[in-house]
Amino acid sequence: MNEYPIPIERLINEFSKLPGIGRKTAMRLAYHIINMNEIEVRNLANALVEAKEKIHECKLCFNLTDKEYCDLCSDEKRDKSIICVVESPKDVFAIENGGGYKGLYHVLHGIISPINGMGADQIRLRELEDRLTDGIKEIIIATNLSVEGDATAHYISEFVKGRDILVTRIAHGVPVGSDLEYFDSVTLKLALKNRTEI
Amino acid sequence: MNEYPIPIERLINEFSKLPGIGRKTAMRLAYHIINMNEIEVRNLANALVEAKEKIHECKLCFNLTDKEYCDLCSDEKRDKSIICVVESPKDVFAIENGGGYKGLYHVLHGIISPINGMGADQIRLRELEDRLTDGIKEIIIATNLSVEGDATAHYISEFVKGRDILVTRIAHGVPVGSDLEYFDSVTLKLALKNRTEI
Repeated sequence: MNEYPIPIERLINEFSKLPGIGRKTAMRLAYHIINMNEIEVRNLANALVEAKEKIHECKLCFNLTDKEYCDLCSDEKRDKSIICVVESPKDVFAIENGGGYKGLYHVLHGIISPINGMGADQIRLRELEDRLTDGIKEIIIATNLSVEGDATAHYISEFVKGRDILVTRIAHGVPVGSDLEYFDSVTLKLALKNRTEI
Repeated sequence: MNEYPIPIERLINEFSKLPGIGRKTAMRLAYHIINMNEIEVRNLANALVEAKEKIHECKLCFNLTDKEYCDLCSDEKRDKSIICVVESPKDVFAIENGGGYKGLYHVLHGIISPINGMGADQIRLRELEDRLTDGIKEIIIATNLSVEGDATAHYISEFVKGRDILVTRIAHGVPVGSDLEYFDSVTLKLALKNRTEI
């Protein structure tokens, strides 16, 4: 017998499909599930199905939400003249947790990457263009400083061109509180190039 | 907004309760779930509930099974005169994967540990005693070489005493293919003490 009873084997297989969970971890999780009480297991199972059923993209910014428009787009206090363009919903939560930004967002759900077969029309770029109405004053591009991030930033700046909208990109440099020795040469060069007067 | 939409927050909380999964990992998993298709999510949710519902302890050896008696106890080819006593079902699967052992098992579901409030009557020791009928020739104790493992082994050997049953303990020493320098002094002392002639 090198096999577990079928229900355990099935659970191990399902767990193994999740990112970062190998077979050993899946086995440990499966044993834990069997030792949990039934209500706890049902809570987890329901949370899974409910998250999948109720969460969808905001109609305006494509952030994840359980409403028609996300809490950020519906918030009257947010500055509706600035849009920060990010790759994924995780980036929205990261910037929100940082605090300080009071504008709106636009989640692309990807990045232009010909190698991975991602073209401009497979991400939410057209929807961004549709949002560029009179009220918009600034587009902040917060894509990564990679070839794909650059290509996406370039594409956006191209279609914004000719309108009275400022296009900016978040600063890249050395994170606060970090030792210089741990950063790559590109980050350090950028940090020096974009130095500011104190 | 420092909070996720409620269904995501709830899923992150549920994931965080699992062993070895912190909030960051739970967030990553929750995002993955939302990007999975609905059938996959339902498969995972069903596997959870089904494993919890269908898996229980074997009536004889207390290994995990979805039947009344586990596949090992029901297997006519197994040697029913030897019982290997282990702490948890994981140990059964480990020994089975190792191959070579053809006897039965007895899963204690714990170990005698007064510090953790685990006495002899909170684990499946009485049930082991009940199994010591005429046919049994040997009890192999495969508990860990810790204070608790020793106490449990001692307890078992005490109640087997007086019967015509051999009580043995698995060999402890240096694992095959390992460098000696990486092992603690207790393991090395044992490996030397229990040396065998070649």
